[in-house]
Amino acid sequence: MKKIGILGSTGSIGTQTLQVMDQLPGKFDLKYLTAHQNVDLLAVQALQYQPDTVCIVNEKKKGQLEDCLSGSNIRIIAGRSALLELSSRNDIDLVMNSLVGAAGMEPTICSVEAGVDLALSNKESLVMAGNIINDLLKQNSGKLFPVDSEHNAIWQCLKGENIEQIKRIILTGSGGPFRTKSKDEFHQITLEQALKHPNWEMGNKITIDSATMMNKGLEVIEAHWLFDVGIDQIDIVIHPQSIIHSMVEFVDGSVKAQLGAPDMKIPIQYALTYPDHFPANWETLNLVNIGNLTFEKPDLEKFPCIRLAYEALNEGGTFPVVMNVANDEVVAAFLNNHIQFSDIPHLIEDAMNQHEFILSPDLETISAISLWTTNYIHDEILTIA
Amino acid sequence: MKKIGILGSTGSIGTQTLQVMDQLPGKFDLKYLTAHQNVDLLAVQALQYQPDTVCIVNEKKKGQLEDCLSGSNIRIIAGRSALLELSSRNDIDLVMNSLVGAAGMEPTICSVEAGVDLALSNKESLVMAGNIINDLLKQNSGKLFPVDSEHNAIWQCLKGENIEQIKRIILTGSGGPFRTKSKDEFHQITLEQALKHPNWEMGNKITIDSATMMNKGLEVIEAHWLFDVGIDQIDIVIHPQSIIHSMVEFVDGSVKAQLGAPDMKIPIQYALTYPDHFPANWETLNLVNIGNLTFEKPDLEKFPCIRLAYEALNEGGTFPVVMNVANDEVVAAFLNNHIQFSDIPHLIEDAMNQHEFILSPDLETISAISLWTTNYIHDEILTIA
Repeated sequence: MKKIGILGSTGSIGTQTLQVMDQLPGKFDLKYLTAHQNVDLLAVQALQYQPDTVCIVNEKKKGQLEDCLSGSNIRIIAGRSALLELSSRNDIDLVMNSLVGAAGMEPTICSVEAGVDLALSNKESLVMAGNIINDLLKQNSGKLFPVDSEHNAIWQCLKGENIEQIKRIILTGSGGPFRTKSKDEFHQITLEQALKHPNWEMGNKITIDSATMMNKGLEVIEAHWLFDVGIDQIDIVIHPQSIIHSMVEFVDGSVKAQLGAPDMKIPIQYALTYPDHFPANWETLNLVNIGNLTFEKPDLEKFPCIRLAYEALNEGGTFPVVMNVANDEVVAAFLNNHIQFSDIPHLIEDAMNQHEFILSPDLETISAISLWTTNYIHDEILTIA
Repeated sequence: MKKIGILGSTGSIGTQTLQVMDQLPGKFDLKYLTAHQNVDLLAVQALQYQPDTVCIVNEKKKGQLEDCLSGSNIRIIAGRSALLELSSRNDIDLVMNSLVGAAGMEPTICSVEAGVDLALSNKESLVMAGNIINDLLKQNSGKLFPVDSEHNAIWQCLKGENIEQIKRIILTGSGGPFRTKSKDEFHQITLEQALKHPNWEMGNKITIDSATMMNKGLEVIEAHWLFDVGIDQIDIVIHPQSIIHSMVEFVDGSVKAQLGAPDMKIPIQYALTYPDHFPANWETLNLVNIGNLTFEKPDLEKFPCIRLAYEALNEGGTFPVVMNVANDEVVAAFLNNHIQFSDIPHLIEDAMNQHEFILSPDLETISAISLWTTNYIHDEILTIA
């Protein structure tokens, strides 16, 4: 049995990871679960799956969790340092990092340093510290398995292939809920509208990232670090049906694509069972029923976040860090109704322009610039509100 | 340099094989060329590529070929036995078998017995003797590389994968020139209409096979032998744009597809350079320009040849042999204006129903039943004409 730990087990990817494990009985041995603050669900999961340890990051909730699990033998730990302690465990085979936002970066680094295989849903880790993580992967024995549907697709297409024979990577994106909305109407977009993704059921943060298309921008940077491709080798194609999850074009003009129903359980399972495909009980793709797959250019005027991400990747250094942390903060502010949808790209771009650039930041610098960015965005939001 | 022989160098696949070799200078050393009767083109190719041997199958043309190549050091041989002698050479690395129809089967067997890798465009080899060829592949050192765009696509999708984790194979087909024509009008179809394929530039025989959709039927049988999948694991989906060349669905619901412009040079090159992708100078796929990929069910009422092929595969034994030889003969008769387009499936089905079934034919039996089928169809055509 493969020994598994899940970082962020109560979120969308975390709960779907448990569903995948449910349908492959006897294949996995769950060792730990962590949650930010959803004590009720974490307790239910703990009682069902009996990990040796659970961690609640919000320390104020520890007592409540202890009450829920009283009488069990499950070890209960709390706080950010406890999260990092779990991420560093080397007595497991694979960590699923399904944390959201910049908070996922340090746990990624702990897992890689522990030499454990890492199923990575937290794309922000690579956006902020791709260079450092790649160096650590070379020095340690663990491998990185992308969970993001696009990167999981590319990874599947590259199976058995030579990465040097890639001509380009084609990331597909649905275009989100505002693909056909005119730019003039963007200032009227409500939170409710932005939270309605046409195809995918996801957590709130990534759903807003899909609406601004910053998600696709983050994925461009993620692809750069995962597959060793240059900025001019990464294209975005809008594909509203979300059936082709991404493609690889090789130097001979042959293109490979991975397709499937828009169901995150498929890439999650593949990351858990790699290099094997194990049987699954969910609905399979029926292209005749779907009938039609369409493709468009992305509109960089309407979705400036895509442009910001290409710029951040091109500039390198601290630019992607600032972009990513600023995005975390403005999305949280939008989810709390503190800013408008159309404020999002402007605030991010301001932070990028105002920050003090460093070309090769170490983790300490990344931490400092993240703090600066958080403070900068909070101040800016106060002037708006 | 990889030492190559081409069987059928003056046909569509043969000439495109030479174009592929042209754009990869220094990679290949051409050892022999063969043609059925196109002396002029064979002579031009021989003078350009300087193989050690050329073979003209129609012995009456040998003198003409000798005249064209007088003064060169190229060995000239003629006749069917000379073709088989060349196919049996083991001093080369790879044979491209781009012969058309049942005539390609024996050369396939010669190459496999010689232990040489075989790039197979002649799908009829596998339709007629898939079982025998697979047994010979196990006993000898050569490998089989499919050139047919659909099977080349599946082969690419299976790179690095475990064939036992396939759920099904989805063969795509354009639907040919009569996809939208009503069945009532099929009796009015002219040869000229049938020779106009909407997407692919191909030889006459396969173009007619595409119009009747027997081509897709032959491909179902070919896929069965190439990829060890059962009849219930092979589906056909009509995809008029011919951009997705075929797909593999794995047991976890993940689907891999290979895409590209409808250009046979891509699969030909991949078969020549496997497992590598080498740079190519042809136009690459632009999905945004294409805009739309559509998918439909095949219409088995309008295209009974598909049904015949599934039946032949299901019955096994001599059924696919009779179907294939009958198809060769009726297509030749249609190309010579001896029968109507709508006669094609009926004549094939009659031959299948009338033949004396043998479950496990050896090569001698296949030869005898082929002769019976040819005679049967010739007699039937005489009664029609």
